Amino acid sequence: MGNLHAGHLALIDQANQLADCVVVSIFVNRLQFLPHEDFNRYPRTFEEDCRALSLQNVKIVFAPNEKILFPTPQEFLLALPSVADILEGKFRPGFFRGVATIVLKLFNIIQPEFAVFGKKDYQQLHIVRKMVQQLNLPVEIIASETVRAADGLALSSRNQYLNEVQRAEASRLYQTLLRIKKEISSGNKNFQTLQQNAVDTLKQHGWRVDYISIHSRNTLSFAQASDQDLVVLGAAWLDNTRLIDNLEI
Amino acid sequence: MGNLHAGHLALIDQANQLADCVVVSIFVNRLQFLPHEDFNRYPRTFEEDCRALSLQNVKIVFAPNEKILFPTPQEFLLALPSVADILEGKFRPGFFRGVATIVLKLFNIIQPEFAVFGKKDYQQLHIVRKMVQQLNLPVEIIASETVRAADGLALSSRNQYLNEVQRAEASRLYQTLLRIKKEISSGNKNFQTLQQNAVDTLKQHGWRVDYISIHSRNTLSFAQASDQDLVVLGAAWLDNTRLIDNLEI
Repeated sequence: MGNLHAGHLALIDQANQLADCVVVSIFVNRLQFLPHEDFNRYPRTFEEDCRALSLQNVKIVFAPNEKILFPTPQEFLLALPSVADILEGKFRPGFFRGVATIVLKLFNIIQPEFAVFGKKDYQQLHIVRKMVQQLNLPVEIIASETVRAADGLALSSRNQYLNEVQRAEASRLYQTLLRIKKEISSGNKNFQTLQQNAVDTLKQHGWRVDYISIHSRNTLSFAQASDQDLVVLGAAWLDNTRLIDNLEI
Repeated sequence: MGNLHAGHLALIDQANQLADCVVVSIFVNRLQFLPHEDFNRYPRTFEEDCRALSLQNVKIVFAPNEKILFPTPQEFLLALPSVADILEGKFRPGFFRGVATIVLKLFNIIQPEFAVFGKKDYQQLHIVRKMVQQLNLPVEIIASETVRAADGLALSSRNQYLNEVQRAEASRLYQTLLRIKKEISSGNKNFQTLQQNAVDTLKQHGWRVDYISIHSRNTLSFAQASDQDLVVLGAAWLDNTRLIDNLEI
């Protein structure tokens, strides 16, 4: 969606290592915003983005206007499995249908051999991978690690909505997930308690919490004590700004 | 779905004229059958099909087993616009979702430059064309004319379900559509009456009629008096055999 930061540039680094020709798509996708969400105020910085991409040796930017991608209202959409209804999908109904549909359209237009997605949008990465498998798409999905600020805050275009005080507070989301990761890594399997404590901590510091939730990494279903590969995901608000983050365990 | 007849072979003729390399897919797609429909008794004649394809100079047949196309249950499906809920979609709910999903998977696997579809499945052709536009699929859809027996009956694998008496009666579906076409071509715009008379005629000869219906060719919505390009579509049963046909006007 443009407004490129060091997280995006890391995706492009990875793409540059894999491919002879890297195409960057920049498109603020209306399909994945709910009516009350920040589609209109979402930061659009196309000129700066192109300068940053030039420095990364990117030769092709695909930045269509809406009429190119949607000459008629989008009536063919993807119907997704129930994994799209938890976590982000629970708090942003229709979000993943919008994401999956635009990703499918972009894949069909660009026809890339590889596509690089960041782990910060962990559930999105999971759903795109599944879509590729289930629709037999001829593309390989590459995951890229989340890039963080010095205090641990995951980079995000939405971070710029934060004022100075909020910005100082924002890294608590990461710190809270990190505490859960450490607890689980040392053998604590009281997932419910870990989640609840994390929610309580954030609330005490002024956050509104959508979820702090521990899941199986392979299926993204809620973690069972027997699961080996886990991920803890969180979404919470500071005033009007919604931040998400996750850590693999 | 295999069980090739002269209608299929005409599609392949057309493909041979367009392409250096023709791939024929043969797959009886469970997704497009309702639970009570004829998935199990649908005629499967793979060896004969391959002999016929050899004579047509086809070098590649893609005939996957179900585990290849569906290693896991298909959870990503297409959500279709309302044009998928009329005509065939009204009488076979879920049919076009199953068709569109398998066609999308086959396109992604084969990655054809062209794909040839018969006009006999007129609504299917319409929906596949729209899907290609709306999902930006890199394939060109080619329409192929319906092939008919000497008495006008559209060729169909399901014709072999008919006994001798039914086979003699079966061409009445075509004759009935032809009468509507002639009436409209001479200026009759009483669509409702034309449809009702056709239904009555078929019923008098022992048919159970799902629909006889006049539509805009471009949108497939119900015909308005102002529409120029029309198509009349019909679906009706002789005992346990369901036949469909259509004529452009």
